Amino acid sequence: MTERLVVIGADAAGMSAASTAARHKPDLEVVALERGTRTSYAACGIPFVVGGEIDDIESLVARSPEKFRDSQGFDVRLRHEVVGIDLAARTVEASDLDAGATVTVGFDQLVIGTGARPLRPPIPGIEGEAIQGVQNLDDAARLLAAAESGACNNVVVVGGGYIGLEMAEAFCRRGSHVTVLDAAPQVMRTLDADMANLVVEAMVANGIEVRLGVTITAFEPGEVVTTDERLRADLVVLGMGVVPNSELARQAGLALGVRDSIRVDRRQRTSAEGIWAAGDCCESFHRVTGAPTYVALGTVANRQGRVAGINIGGGYATFPGVLGTAVTRICALEIARTGLGEAEAAAAGFEVDVAKVTASTRAHYYPGAEPVVVKLVTEKGSGRLLGGQIVGGSGSAKRIDTVATALWAGMEGAELVNLDLAYAPPFSPVWDPVATAARRLA
Amino acid sequence: MTERLVVIGADAAGMSAASTAARHKPDLEVVALERGTRTSYAACGIPFVVGGEIDDIESLVARSPEKFRDSQGFDVRLRHEVVGIDLAARTVEASDLDAGATVTVGFDQLVIGTGARPLRPPIPGIEGEAIQGVQNLDDAARLLAAAESGACNNVVVVGGGYIGLEMAEAFCRRGSHVTVLDAAPQVMRTLDADMANLVVEAMVANGIEVRLGVTITAFEPGEVVTTDERLRADLVVLGMGVVPNSELARQAGLALGVRDSIRVDRRQRTSAEGIWAAGDCCESFHRVTGAPTYVALGTVANRQGRVAGINIGGGYATFPGVLGTAVTRICALEIARTGLGEAEAAAAGFEVDVAKVTASTRAHYYPGAEPVVVKLVTEKGSGRLLGGQIVGGSGSAKRIDTVATALWAGMEGAELVNLDLAYAPPFSPVWDPVATAARRLA
Repeated sequence: MTERLVVIGADAAGMSAASTAARHKPDLEVVALERGTRTSYAACGIPFVVGGEIDDIESLVARSPEKFRDSQGFDVRLRHEVVGIDLAARTVEASDLDAGATVTVGFDQLVIGTGARPLRPPIPGIEGEAIQGVQNLDDAARLLAAAESGACNNVVVVGGGYIGLEMAEAFCRRGSHVTVLDAAPQVMRTLDADMANLVVEAMVANGIEVRLGVTITAFEPGEVVTTDERLRADLVVLGMGVVPNSELARQAGLALGVRDSIRVDRRQRTSAEGIWAAGDCCESFHRVTGAPTYVALGTVANRQGRVAGINIGGGYATFPGVLGTAVTRICALEIARTGLGEAEAAAAGFEVDVAKVTASTRAHYYPGAEPVVVKLVTEKGSGRLLGGQIVGGSGSAKRIDTVATALWAGMEGAELVNLDLAYAPPFSPVWDPVATAARRLA
Repeated sequence: MTERLVVIGADAAGMSAASTAARHKPDLEVVALERGTRTSYAACGIPFVVGGEIDDIESLVARSPEKFRDSQGFDVRLRHEVVGIDLAARTVEASDLDAGATVTVGFDQLVIGTGARPLRPPIPGIEGEAIQGVQNLDDAARLLAAAESGACNNVVVVGGGYIGLEMAEAFCRRGSHVTVLDAAPQVMRTLDADMANLVVEAMVANGIEVRLGVTITAFEPGEVVTTDERLRADLVVLGMGVVPNSELARQAGLALGVRDSIRVDRRQRTSAEGIWAAGDCCESFHRVTGAPTYVALGTVANRQGRVAGINIGGGYATFPGVLGTAVTRICALEIARTGLGEAEAAAAGFEVDVAKVTASTRAHYYPGAEPVVVKLVTEKGSGRLLGGQIVGGSGSAKRIDTVATALWAGMEGAELVNLDLAYAPPFSPVWDPVATAARRLA
């Protein structure tokens, strides 16, 4: 009998796993159960659609159900919501949302790729019609319609993380008056406060209001109520972070880990034989601290899916962990980070040395040269690189990859002085800004 | 008595060494002897001045003689050409070109930073007035005047290396009809032929003619004569590479190495006590092959100068070698390389595996996404990364730094699959092009 792989959730993690497994084991039968109407899509592209930089929502779909069916022979069932996993019977039970029926599908191997969902704390009124999450392409369509309606004069964004700030910029581009609220004393908590402040300066210069340390008490029609004031809001965008969709796994008795994400080993195996998990629903581990962590990012989902797929396909692969590398662009400012910030390092028990420099993105005489701030964090004594953060003009952000690669390889911070990095006037000063920061360490 | 450091050649290597040494040893007396009229300047910016992208030649000067004198107290003597080094007497003899006199300067420590000069093979007519090198800012002024004169209808560039192609584009921007000649069967011999061909395609699409495998027999007024034809040339630009200025060192009895560059140890010491060399005049070594090599690049000059300076200042530093990382932009195409290409690896005795992919510089749906070709070379068996080459649209080139950092750290090529590189739609596809190439290896 043919071996059957069932995938719950037909997005990046699940479909990477299935595609990779099928490449290794061509006879594998793949059944993918997806409660939504689409397969692999790029949710991270939503702010750019809403802001008008990308014309077509459908362009965010990386691979359509038809493509999976036609070119890979996968049995992709949309609008099928899995409601239970029976480990003993090796079956999943799914609700066919259109037919109103329940189907049971047996599996030999199972990949859980259920992703994450936006955090919605129980604030009165949070389920209101004008309160919009940024999760899937249906959300994107609603946000786009709102942005194009001309009726969103006042937009309140709740949460100053990546998605929140990207959405703030998107509505700012559309001419809305945008206010960002965050309960924390800074935006982008994955950056150190000094670097995050540079981002706020850029936003304020672009007319976006940022209010920090704010507690929201209620969402009312047309208003957001905080302990300090009432803010007019034709639309509220929620960007408060995500929580893993791990209920199915918990109900089935699988072990959970950090933030109730599904616990997996290095091969992406859950606590039950033949059950795998990958992506935003499952745990990861941090290469610098060595501790389990939870990171919901498409890059990680794809890599974890690949690792699960190789193992399901009979090969051998382990997931070597994350550095928490992330990048975005807010109001023409490029922002990137990897590893541990100064505050995170302290929280993890490290004593650190820090170097922070302001350099130039290009040779100082080359047109378009802009300032870039680079911060490197190393462990006191050993000098081991722990992380880096970069905020600056065009051409700044991807320099974080140099830091991430050095961090991956366990290099010392001061060793980055001597790296043989690429130089030509349109691309860099003679000393790359990353090397300049490292010189400060050396 | 005060310790005196004499520097021969007041450009990147020498002045980096002097500045670093003086920081470590504030009492050090520094005398810099420079036969030209300028200190540290960016010769690599010359093509952009000639092409009109940079307005002011003087902006290429990184640090003026006055600055070195006033803020660092250096005794900078311009138009002083050193004509001899007396190791026994610990003196250098310099010709004061303006005064027509000879001066003798004693030293405790000596840094030789005499740089390199353009190769000028003994082809008849090569000393003609219309035959122009690209070396210093006086050359830049002459080339700029030619470009702006409107009289350069036909420009022939001899040599298809970085400077040659950059100058070809510069004159192309100025409306000249440009022909590039090279004796080799490909341009940019530091790239593999398949990658170099992409560069030629871009140049040809921009109206630049490229003729390979050409032997020049003579330069005549208004013409370049090859074994095949006579080419009209109002101006000939020489970009045939450089040779180290090591005559002084040889005459003094110092050991020479690869291509007659000055031999140095890891601390930048020459074969004589207290005599140091750095930059384009001296030898380096290649981290991948482990062999001595000669690289004339500003980045290397600055790093070697820094290492010499730390040691002269009483500290301890070693130069850890080069990877041959280089980058340029020709006709909107970004081109970068590091380590060994396929051909170089073979020449060094390696058997290799190669992965080559065409990917996208950004998420496929994000405006401005362009193709990028990434090639990675690994050692057969061990899988060790040996080098990489990248040719593509805007945003391609600095990705080489990821490869260079991985190479520096001695990583395996396939390990780059899992690197936690930065992703957001304006900057990268979910799988960075470098990781996509590594997947091909894995």
